[in-house]
Amino acid sequence: MAFKKVVVVGGGVLGSQIAYQVAYKGFDVTVWLRSEGSIERAKPKFARWHETYLKDLEATKALIGTGTKLYPRGLVDDFENLTAEKVDELKVQADQAFESLTYELDMTKAMADADLVIESLSEDPKAKIAFYQQMAPLLPEKTVIVTNSSTMVPSAFAQYTGRPEKYLALHFANEIWKNNTAEIMGHAGTDQKYYDEVVEFAGQIGMIPLKLYKEQPGYILNSLLVPFLNAGEALYANDVADPETIDLTWSLATGAPLGPFRILDIVGLETAYNIVCMDPAAKDPKTTPGKIAKRLKEKIDAGKKGVCTGEGFYKYTK
Amino acid sequence: MAFKKVVVVGGGVLGSQIAYQVAYKGFDVTVWLRSEGSIERAKPKFARWHETYLKDLEATKALIGTGTKLYPRGLVDDFENLTAEKVDELKVQADQAFESLTYELDMTKAMADADLVIESLSEDPKAKIAFYQQMAPLLPEKTVIVTNSSTMVPSAFAQYTGRPEKYLALHFANEIWKNNTAEIMGHAGTDQKYYDEVVEFAGQIGMIPLKLYKEQPGYILNSLLVPFLNAGEALYANDVADPETIDLTWSLATGAPLGPFRILDIVGLETAYNIVCMDPAAKDPKTTPGKIAKRLKEKIDAGKKGVCTGEGFYKYTK
Repeated sequence: MAFKKVVVVGGGVLGSQIAYQVAYKGFDVTVWLRSEGSIERAKPKFARWHETYLKDLEATKALIGTGTKLYPRGLVDDFENLTAEKVDELKVQADQAFESLTYELDMTKAMADADLVIESLSEDPKAKIAFYQQMAPLLPEKTVIVTNSSTMVPSAFAQYTGRPEKYLALHFANEIWKNNTAEIMGHAGTDQKYYDEVVEFAGQIGMIPLKLYKEQPGYILNSLLVPFLNAGEALYANDVADPETIDLTWSLATGAPLGPFRILDIVGLETAYNIVCMDPAAKDPKTTPGKIAKRLKEKIDAGKKGVCTGEGFYKYTK
Repeated sequence: MAFKKVVVVGGGVLGSQIAYQVAYKGFDVTVWLRSEGSIERAKPKFARWHETYLKDLEATKALIGTGTKLYPRGLVDDFENLTAEKVDELKVQADQAFESLTYELDMTKAMADADLVIESLSEDPKAKIAFYQQMAPLLPEKTVIVTNSSTMVPSAFAQYTGRPEKYLALHFANEIWKNNTAEIMGHAGTDQKYYDEVVEFAGQIGMIPLKLYKEQPGYILNSLLVPFLNAGEALYANDVADPETIDLTWSLATGAPLGPFRILDIVGLETAYNIVCMDPAAKDPKTTPGKIAKRLKEKIDAGKKGVCTGEGFYKYTK
């Protein structure tokens, strides 16, 4: 195991999931937080993941032998040979992880002897740069740094880390214990040795490593998803067909359970709106992006933001 | 039932499937063909569909009660209440359809008393125009005309039909008895009355009608599929990731059984190549379309054209 001590920077929704998952897999995890207030905000999240892991593990017992693929893949390595006893051991593992987490405000102490730093700060480039600059002189030479940024590429920050060759992206999905993908992407100056170590680490923490060979904004998933969703939105915003018909067409033709509008409801209409508004053409209501933005805004204003609010393009019952 | 006599124009792969399916559903079907040679080429296709329907119906018996969705949806209306006896009745229906088909070379005779003409000629706009011009004066006033064109829109031909208000597109998928989608699309001058009749007819012949409210090149499916496949091809051609990784990312994130490269193998790499070459940028090997075209061409030249040749991005065993 190349890494022993892992420091997670940030206790937000993703940061707290990452830290807890890494601890669940037996690593020594320190969560660096900026203030006492951050610790107070983070602790209920960790308590929530702890409960969720226990609940999802318990529910997995009923899935043993069913051959389903809908089990929490990040929690269970060998689902085929899972037993109820093994699940109980994993629950103990989840308890131990929760107790083992160290919260640290002092960056010098947090970074001492760190093998890996996982940066999961909010998507504010200035804040990220300031953080990297503050951290760089405190790190031992061995430390590898990864960023969980969704929207920025590692080359934008490599120079501030003091170790560009040991810096790359390790991008997680929300609900990491079920959606266990890890997109791994270096910048041009990343050393293959550290890239490979991060790939290995991703596997060790229960993720499926998805390797990118070069920098790509949006990684793999969003590079596919954005044009796909945009194509669906365009058909709808141009009044070519209904969301239900568009989804049905896709499902019938490709066997996919979800068409673009079901996926949009999961992604959330606010996120979809923010993405379409990145296109300057969205300001002109006569263009397709402008029509898409208008339609999404109407739904958002009506409180129909997707699965999260119980209704988006479809209605959901809890 | 608005339509009784249906004339199918063209005995190609799709035309013959359409004619046989319409006959299977109990309509009076005449296949108009241009020459004795066309009849000779079409007949083995009809014999093949006849055999395939009988085989697929027989295989459906083993699916009764399994709750699977992978049954030939175009052949069976009420799968939930299907019985072996009912399957045997459907096999008789398939035999009767095969015997009932009328082949006609004389266009005047073919079109006499036609309620619906389904044009399924090859995608040659000049040939289509010449055909419509020849047919228009021979049709009774009542006749509705639909085109199965995949790549052209009805407004391109409406003026040559002598009845633009009774002209629209009814677009089928290959293997119509399993992939039973029918995209229905009018042009600006199509009368809603006839559009609705065609929607009803699509349901009567075992298709799931997918309604478009206005003209859209590529209909719904290709409007989604082309940018989606292009996004996958771009990641691959720019060496961002492997086809396997790209497909895996999509499947893990969306639950879809097929990622872009599995779909490309089914569509066929020659079709994908022709689509990318429609982009003038494909001529420049430094552009993304140029890189995609080069990669596809290399595979095509190596005989790896997709599922049809046993290998494309993946290998297939028969």
